Amino acid sequence: MIKIAIFGYGNIGHAAEAAIRKAQDMTLVGVFHHDEADRVIASEPDVVLLCTPTREVQEWAPLFLNKGICTIDSFDIHGEIYPLAENLTPICREGKAVAIISAGWDPGSDSMIRAIMTALVPEGVGYTNFGPGRSMGHTVAAKAIAGVKDALSMTLPAGKGKHNRHVYIEIEEGYDFEQVKAAILRDDYFAHDDTEVELVPSVAAINTTNHGVHIERNGLSGDTPDEQIDFTMRINNPALTGQMMTSCARAAYRMRQRAEWGCFTTIELRPIDLLPWEREKAIREMV
Amino acid sequence: MIKIAIFGYGNIGHAAEAAIRKAQDMTLVGVFHHDEADRVIASEPDVVLLCTPTREVQEWAPLFLNKGICTIDSFDIHGEIYPLAENLTPICREGKAVAIISAGWDPGSDSMIRAIMTALVPEGVGYTNFGPGRSMGHTVAAKAIAGVKDALSMTLPAGKGKHNRHVYIEIEEGYDFEQVKAAILRDDYFAHDDTEVELVPSVAAINTTNHGVHIERNGLSGDTPDEQIDFTMRINNPALTGQMMTSCARAAYRMRQRAEWGCFTTIELRPIDLLPWEREKAIREMV
Repeated sequence: MIKIAIFGYGNIGHAAEAAIRKAQDMTLVGVFHHDEADRVIASEPDVVLLCTPTREVQEWAPLFLNKGICTIDSFDIHGEIYPLAENLTPICREGKAVAIISAGWDPGSDSMIRAIMTALVPEGVGYTNFGPGRSMGHTVAAKAIAGVKDALSMTLPAGKGKHNRHVYIEIEEGYDFEQVKAAILRDDYFAHDDTEVELVPSVAAINTTNHGVHIERNGLSGDTPDEQIDFTMRINNPALTGQMMTSCARAAYRMRQRAEWGCFTTIELRPIDLLPWEREKAIREMV
Repeated sequence: MIKIAIFGYGNIGHAAEAAIRKAQDMTLVGVFHHDEADRVIASEPDVVLLCTPTREVQEWAPLFLNKGICTIDSFDIHGEIYPLAENLTPICREGKAVAIISAGWDPGSDSMIRAIMTALVPEGVGYTNFGPGRSMGHTVAAKAIAGVKDALSMTLPAGKGKHNRHVYIEIEEGYDFEQVKAAILRDDYFAHDDTEVELVPSVAAINTTNHGVHIERNGLSGDTPDEQIDFTMRINNPALTGQMMTSCARAAYRMRQRAEWGCFTTIELRPIDLLPWEREKAIREMV
């Protein structure tokens, strides 16, 4: 049995808990809040799921990796993924542990899909179209604006990898909607996209964790044109993130057993390592 | 540069040649017919693509693996893939080579997609729906029936992983269509599916190598239901097969360099190894 700890108990921590309880090859050794790192280590897990905010991964991961405990995170700032891997790699090797970073769905499973599509259609164009669905990051950014009482920022696909945003807000008493709206539109999170801000009586009433993605690639296999590949999901955002992190925990455990210490992204994982079965069953069922 | 040889020069061999010529990290050392195995070895390739019929893989692969030359095939008899892997594994280890088997699109890239979908939605139902498109195996089987002058067998998706077949034939002079049709319907290749046989003036006029697949999976991530994932391709059958085999040649070469000798299916490959880039570029572009 693979011993797993959950560190950070928000939406993703709760979802990961459900995924671990369903996995017959895993035991949940504990669920810990972000001020309990010492208790995580004392629980002697094989793998800890870092369900803390993305910006804290660099801070927490070394604590566990140093002790030989593998870490999984869903770090999602695309431009900073490679530097994070570079930073964690020596720590993993020193601690004889495996870190799998950016192991949610995008980055994460979508990254694996993009790599496979590109192997099939090396010359071509590809787009990742998100939504419609709730953007966790943009929702947090909108809530941080002065006068915003509650917010929900939806990502709407506009085609060819472009997106529009639709921000639903409630405002605090004494604030003017037009001024709050202008502040949101000036915010760096929203300034680059076509964004609509709408005042609603209750954000809670329209809340959703549903999300989706459409990854498309079109081009040539060899010199044959017009190959078309599409991958589409309609999913629950935290549930899929927690599930992918849990499946990656299995991969990290196996890689540590094989002494493949280091920090890896999902495109560096073997898909078979995500599955609970022995090799023969995996090949017979999946290949 | 990775030195590649093509062994067998039919539809797939031709498609692989185009894919190799496009790959900037590969050199094509030669294209060889199936009676030229000695010349393949003399050309000292790193990897040989076995573009011979599926049934011949077990016969040819050991010749090359014994010499430390990696092999890639598109062996497509699903129930016999694991036994083939078992047979080739000791030969690979002895020869310090890597065999990647069943490395077309199904089995092949579709197998990787199914494994990733299952990691995301462990409890659920999945279906692989082929076509509409030309079935290479069923077309050959129809052509082998006495009285058939030319044939094209199309696979038509009937939903939930079920398929119908539509066989277009021309018949030899002196044969009766109804009798030829009855012989086709009795053949083991066609006896298990809903099959329609149609007499046409010219099979060549309706010939196609276009094909497609829709892989779907629906179920739970953790305890959250109604997750829905779909993967769809419209592709040229030999072109995609030749391209996937070529991308897998790169993976085999790298795995041999890392002394990861053995026989592997596509679900045991890291997607990054299919791509021509160095690690940093692959992570920055794909993750």
